[in-house]
Amino acid sequence: MKIPQATTKRLSLYYRFLQHFANAGKERVSSKELSEAMKIDSATIRRDFSYFGALGRKGYGYDVPYLLRFFRETLDQDVETNVALVGAGNLGSAFLKYNFHKNHNTKIVVAFDNHAPIDGEIISGIPVFHPDRMEELLPNYDVEIAILTVPSRSAQEMADRLAELGIKGIMNFTPVRISVRDDVRVHTIDLSVELQTLIYFIKNDGKIEE
Amino acid sequence: MKIPQATTKRLSLYYRFLQHFANAGKERVSSKELSEAMKIDSATIRRDFSYFGALGRKGYGYDVPYLLRFFRETLDQDVETNVALVGAGNLGSAFLKYNFHKNHNTKIVVAFDNHAPIDGEIISGIPVFHPDRMEELLPNYDVEIAILTVPSRSAQEMADRLAELGIKGIMNFTPVRISVRDDVRVHTIDLSVELQTLIYFIKNDGKIEE
Repeated sequence: MKIPQATTKRLSLYYRFLQHFANAGKERVSSKELSEAMKIDSATIRRDFSYFGALGRKGYGYDVPYLLRFFRETLDQDVETNVALVGAGNLGSAFLKYNFHKNHNTKIVVAFDNHAPIDGEIISGIPVFHPDRMEELLPNYDVEIAILTVPSRSAQEMADRLAELGIKGIMNFTPVRISVRDDVRVHTIDLSVELQTLIYFIKNDGKIEE
Repeated sequence: MKIPQATTKRLSLYYRFLQHFANAGKERVSSKELSEAMKIDSATIRRDFSYFGALGRKGYGYDVPYLLRFFRETLDQDVETNVALVGAGNLGSAFLKYNFHKNHNTKIVVAFDNHAPIDGEIISGIPVFHPDRMEELLPNYDVEIAILTVPSRSAQEMADRLAELGIKGIMNFTPVRISVRDDVRVHTIDLSVELQTLIYFIKNDGKIEE
């Protein structure tokens, strides 16, 4: 079954909120309750859930343990995903410290940075090596995903090297639109663009279609 | 004229790329060239530009200086926007150091953090105060936008206080779905969700509609 991309983007959000409901001891939840908690309209939630084969019952709602099990399997929450961080400057070292510790299933296991000594060093518990050793060392860490937080001028070169090393997904925080082979998925979050867009929205309220 | 939201989100990206072309001395650019540089298909670019009243001429392309002037006015690139940062932990202090210095028109001018002394301190050139003084001091800084990088448990309270102080836009980096009055725009970037989504995509390639 094909799932629309917009639905896919809400999967891990649904999972998180269902966990909240489960932790609060709730066994069932209505699309209205989810809608209020998540700020997503309830028609969207019902449509999304129908793709997952989860049909809520009128006056009963959705079964929380069933849904949690479904999302856990779908999102492979039980499988830990190893992540590499490339570029440990301001933003990169914030990620090293944070290390997505609220997600038990994703973990930065290795980092590369130009300022690291050739023998490596430990920052926030993570080994950080010089990028000259990436081809030699990255294969030891069973990594499929890389977070790219290098300066713009190195972004494309690093992306090429990561693709060559078999990385399947790159979370790109540089402003560069990087080009890679079709089998590597790049997801770009450009924080300046996000900020600019928010500014444009508040200055042009009413001129934008929702 | 109403501009679709998806188009709006590309505005500052277009502006950035047109600047690159202008800096490279180009006076005109085709939708194909923009398409290749930006990784956006050229039909989308032509449709977006038609909303701006910019009609490319066949065999000529778009006039770069005209477009740059148009985008600069539209995005208010000449007006500096003051930004407040609330929460100077790992991610927040990375933003303080970075301070969007590639955008000459947006600037973090003040920050608030629980660990700041009551008289304030200077971090990366920016005054950082204790949040107890937010109501007293924020009005001095002519700020319309706030970046929220506090722990989850404080997110809603801080958002309420920012709304009360007249903030018009909140860039929310916490995983909390905050509720504010309708006249405050919240843009949430949940980095864990982004990472989870990328992982889901690479593990389910082919099962997702593009």
